[in-house]
Amino acid sequence: MKKHNFSAGPSILPREVLLKSSEAILDFNNSGLSLIEISHRSKDFVDVMEKARSLVLELLNLDGKGYKVLFLQGGASSQFLMVALNLLEKKAGYLNTGTWSDKAIKEAQLFGDIHEVASSKTSNYNHIPKGYKIASDYDYFHCTSNNTIYGTQIKKFPNSPVPMICDMSSDIFSRQLDFSKFDLIYAGAQKNMGPAGTTLVVVKESILGKVSRKIPSMMDYKLHSSKSSMFNTPPVFAVYTAMLTLEWIKNLGGIKAMEELNKKKEILMYSEIDLNPLFKGFSAKADRSAMNVTFSLVDDHLKETFDTMLKDAGIYGLNGHRSVGGYRASMYNALSIDSVKALVEVMSELESKN
Amino acid sequence: MKKHNFSAGPSILPREVLLKSSEAILDFNNSGLSLIEISHRSKDFVDVMEKARSLVLELLNLDGKGYKVLFLQGGASSQFLMVALNLLEKKAGYLNTGTWSDKAIKEAQLFGDIHEVASSKTSNYNHIPKGYKIASDYDYFHCTSNNTIYGTQIKKFPNSPVPMICDMSSDIFSRQLDFSKFDLIYAGAQKNMGPAGTTLVVVKESILGKVSRKIPSMMDYKLHSSKSSMFNTPPVFAVYTAMLTLEWIKNLGGIKAMEELNKKKEILMYSEIDLNPLFKGFSAKADRSAMNVTFSLVDDHLKETFDTMLKDAGIYGLNGHRSVGGYRASMYNALSIDSVKALVEVMSELESKN
Repeated sequence: MKKHNFSAGPSILPREVLLKSSEAILDFNNSGLSLIEISHRSKDFVDVMEKARSLVLELLNLDGKGYKVLFLQGGASSQFLMVALNLLEKKAGYLNTGTWSDKAIKEAQLFGDIHEVASSKTSNYNHIPKGYKIASDYDYFHCTSNNTIYGTQIKKFPNSPVPMICDMSSDIFSRQLDFSKFDLIYAGAQKNMGPAGTTLVVVKESILGKVSRKIPSMMDYKLHSSKSSMFNTPPVFAVYTAMLTLEWIKNLGGIKAMEELNKKKEILMYSEIDLNPLFKGFSAKADRSAMNVTFSLVDDHLKETFDTMLKDAGIYGLNGHRSVGGYRASMYNALSIDSVKALVEVMSELESKN
Repeated sequence: MKKHNFSAGPSILPREVLLKSSEAILDFNNSGLSLIEISHRSKDFVDVMEKARSLVLELLNLDGKGYKVLFLQGGASSQFLMVALNLLEKKAGYLNTGTWSDKAIKEAQLFGDIHEVASSKTSNYNHIPKGYKIASDYDYFHCTSNNTIYGTQIKKFPNSPVPMICDMSSDIFSRQLDFSKFDLIYAGAQKNMGPAGTTLVVVKESILGKVSRKIPSMMDYKLHSSKSSMFNTPPVFAVYTAMLTLEWIKNLGGIKAMEELNKKKEILMYSEIDLNPLFKGFSAKADRSAMNVTFSLVDDHLKETFDTMLKDAGIYGLNGHRSVGGYRASMYNALSIDSVKALVEVMSELESKN
């Protein structure tokens, strides 16, 4: 039976990407050698890295605008630290919209004064704060575009008077934005872009090299950038699989096509939650995420029945995060509309039976 | 034609590991889902991480001796930084035996006084210095067990009066040692243990928590250890493939069996270099590495002929590092003795023709 994979991350990847990536483990580019047993300095792999880097700029429409693309290790969690080490001299502003924003703030506090420009923590992060001020003496402003755990998403980004840094781990390549508004974008690969093990960093070169501290080599964006993201051995498999996923996005029509598909999935899913009296959504309607749909049963006594029906329908990875409870349907780029239809059908079947 | 893969790293892996790892990309544990699209918190993956961690302790004979095993990201280069952040309060001693030792020293210098106890830098690292002193007021002593670029290897480790830290990136699991002499061992996976993308850290818990600085979360061994190496999303594919490689080592008879095989390859290879008048070795005989054999042609005008013969024999990855020149035959655990025989045959054929 076909599985419908709603995992929050690591999460569903395009089948054709998995096929190619599996094949490359056995024989890469008909070389008779595996992708993972050749030098990262070989032409074959350097080509992969260059292609991945240039696809990112092309898809984000940032080509020729002074940005560099890095594929690093250590997840977004390492970026919480690297952003502060590379950019924080005195103080910075952070928008606190969830657990990951909160962690980013805590790491940055080791290196300077952090002002929370706004926070939705007291309402368990069920909405995105608005109407906050970004002071012009901040070194930068940091925000999280999509909050995987709570199912909220920033729909309109502020006009920041200082460099704007954004953690886009869970919605990059899913919707059209003016990406040139951002001076640094980072994203763990394991949602819309590939397997766990690499983290994308897109950084405007002009913002680097301005802090007075000495930055350790592996934490230094400028150094990684000067070595074209090959300062040390990169995570070869993760970069290759990300490159395949970026190609897949491009071949389907780029971010525009992804957004159209995601819009359809979003409408289908939230309509069911709003119209089906057995379910309720968690997040504020204006801030609902197109990537992670958080909801729960109005009446918990139906839980066992619903869970069994989900399992019978091949629906996987729908458990909500413990901070929110209930259910979470993650609908990343690679999730087909058929999978959303399968879930909505189960929800609607539960209604008709009760 | 069969390829003989002498790459220095990323490098050859056991064929059965590649087969299983390729299969898991398509269907992991008959789940109908890919290894790289399920949650790292799922039981299936937690089992992989636990198995990898326990195999390490078992193979190194460190079970029940107060050590923790971590699979981190960022390569050995990140360990240069993490070792200093976690363990360096005032000063430490480093043995400088090559480029990687030298880089480790430079990173540590950001956090305290570094004493080079000895260095072979002026002789282009062609030997391992001996007879040096390790002061008892160092916070720790750091060394590199095997120098991939130069083809040297520490045969006898000192008795250190302070915690001994060792970068074993290029010879871990290749020879029997009393691993309990070391307080922290680290190793990038991409030589004897798996693909690029994860780094093994084996640390004696009792040495942690003693420095006064606040350590950023992702740099903190104690935090990673308290979360059983799952503080954030681990590099799932790299850890799984490392686990398969550790199983392969165990099934073949553990490190003892690896050492026996490696000894045979070493004798074969160095005998040819010493007996064939067309070739000369680079490193001091007493310090010759069993993993990376560095050598060159006595007369460079044979280079083109030799290179063509190598290519015709399917021999891959034999180029020496630019710091040394000539050739380098990397003979990690997964390289079969047949591959060494194939190389020796070409060398001997070159002799008989000239």
